Amino acid sequence: MMRALLFDNYLRYRTDYPVPEPGENEALIRVTCAGICNTDLEIVKGYMNFRGVPGHEFVGVVERCGNKALEGKRVVGEINLSCGNCPYCKSGLRNHCYNRSVLGILGKDGAFADYVTLPTGNLHLVPDSVPDEEAVFVEPLAAAFEILEQVKIGTEDRVCVLGDGKLGLLAAQVVSLTGCALVVGGRHKEKLSILERRGIETRLSSDITERVFDCVIDCTGSPSGVGSAMKLVRPRGTIVLKTTVAKRDNIDMNVIVIDEITLVGSRCGPFEPAIHALKMKTVDVLPLISRTFPLSKGVEAFNFASGRGILKVLLKA
Amino acid sequence: MMRALLFDNYLRYRTDYPVPEPGENEALIRVTCAGICNTDLEIVKGYMNFRGVPGHEFVGVVERCGNKALEGKRVVGEINLSCGNCPYCKSGLRNHCYNRSVLGILGKDGAFADYVTLPTGNLHLVPDSVPDEEAVFVEPLAAAFEILEQVKIGTEDRVCVLGDGKLGLLAAQVVSLTGCALVVGGRHKEKLSILERRGIETRLSSDITERVFDCVIDCTGSPSGVGSAMKLVRPRGTIVLKTTVAKRDNIDMNVIVIDEITLVGSRCGPFEPAIHALKMKTVDVLPLISRTFPLSKGVEAFNFASGRGILKVLLKA
Repeated sequence: MMRALLFDNYLRYRTDYPVPEPGENEALIRVTCAGICNTDLEIVKGYMNFRGVPGHEFVGVVERCGNKALEGKRVVGEINLSCGNCPYCKSGLRNHCYNRSVLGILGKDGAFADYVTLPTGNLHLVPDSVPDEEAVFVEPLAAAFEILEQVKIGTEDRVCVLGDGKLGLLAAQVVSLTGCALVVGGRHKEKLSILERRGIETRLSSDITERVFDCVIDCTGSPSGVGSAMKLVRPRGTIVLKTTVAKRDNIDMNVIVIDEITLVGSRCGPFEPAIHALKMKTVDVLPLISRTFPLSKGVEAFNFASGRGILKVLLKA
Repeated sequence: MMRALLFDNYLRYRTDYPVPEPGENEALIRVTCAGICNTDLEIVKGYMNFRGVPGHEFVGVVERCGNKALEGKRVVGEINLSCGNCPYCKSGLRNHCYNRSVLGILGKDGAFADYVTLPTGNLHLVPDSVPDEEAVFVEPLAAAFEILEQVKIGTEDRVCVLGDGKLGLLAAQVVSLTGCALVVGGRHKEKLSILERRGIETRLSSDITERVFDCVIDCTGSPSGVGSAMKLVRPRGTIVLKTTVAKRDNIDMNVIVIDEITLVGSRCGPFEPAIHALKMKTVDVLPLISRTFPLSKGVEAFNFASGRGILKVLLKA
């Protein structure tokens, strides 16, 4: 038996949840720290119709594993469990596996528990110099690095990141690594100041009105995010869409055609550059932590995380 | 005075319309043949709030011009009139000029008349071997070649063109030049047979259900075109959007994010490859001509063109 947060019509804390049994090629991992993501907050509102233990941002220690060399190692894990056999897997698109389950999101219990299992191929070692409170950001930071996998951003480019929530603050720091001309638009001066302290230009979104950006990245999490981006991107420019929301404002697709805009959806990303960035301290995630709760106070932590102006909430064993 | 079709609340044929006076760097062109485009059919329904002489697909002979070498030459013309001074022009995006007018669409009388004017920089010479009935397709054919400017399509790619209207039939022929694995989906067997005769695989759209295409090109002109494309494009694939419609079905933008789809709007394109393709006979436009009317029967020609199953309708001087 173990402790876990269980979502099954409502979210509750249980101390009698069964310890998951690792399958072949899977590791049993003792979770030391986990992060609450916006997707988790959506899940407890019914998103994805998920039932089970949520949680997909975590760091932990391998407790048991076929590969004995991994036991005792501190790891983070990629969240998509792919079949390896479908056409998408075979063409290298494992994160888009047709038969995939997704940790704590789709058909697979997640990390808001004492233990979680994952295929060893999904695991990445955490360098000793990166503490748990930073390593728990690898997954969302990887999603920010996905932008650079999809869109070529160079020093000549004018880029605008819209949104000063968790993802916006990570995306902004990652995009700034390219040396491009970056401005970040948000609505909360205290959040934007996290970026200002790192030398990244920020403005209130309402003050950004020039239609000059080669690339606009929607991290608003808002129904109106794409529409705002379309007012800022230059003709033939690119909008990267990170926001998933239940209901979104309609956009005028004719503008996409007439101005030949490219719209790129962006989801999960590569772990290695994210781990590297934390190791090299080229991004700073610690200011994003609003509060840490013990797992036993997980339900309260969810309520706290859904409050206005809250950034990352962590759960510790 | 000259003959012209005038749209001013309603479309009418006039014989007393003033001959346009070419500005500096402009040529006066005697129109010999012009094509009716879907945009023209939309314009007479109120699209773009255009008032004046419509018509942007044409071929003609330069009658008067500052550059005497051009006089007497047979030409086609690019339709965007750019200012040359705005940031978009200066960055090479002349077709997206902030202050542009567009022949027969926005602030500039078009080609459904005896004469039209255009800047000499917009003109392209027509090879002698390309007759008027083919040259009049250069503008829409260039719009099809724009797809290849925006998206890299190679022999390894599986591509689906949706739509067997005028633009679909042109886009399909252009895309097939890449040697990719192409299938064209439409609703009219007799239109698809134009492509079959050129060795291009076609199917009824309803029979294409595999979600395997690297690139899907929406030339449906239909409110549901993007939604259909989203069901066929593979994760991380590209949808090229050619369709402009007054009202479009809503699409689920979350799918764009989750499947990391790229959506590319596509409008006007480069004239030179289009002229070259006609000269080399690598595309065949003649089967797309449904009927030719004299300019004096232009109003009737519009009514005919808006009928079901009609492809290109031409107006001849």
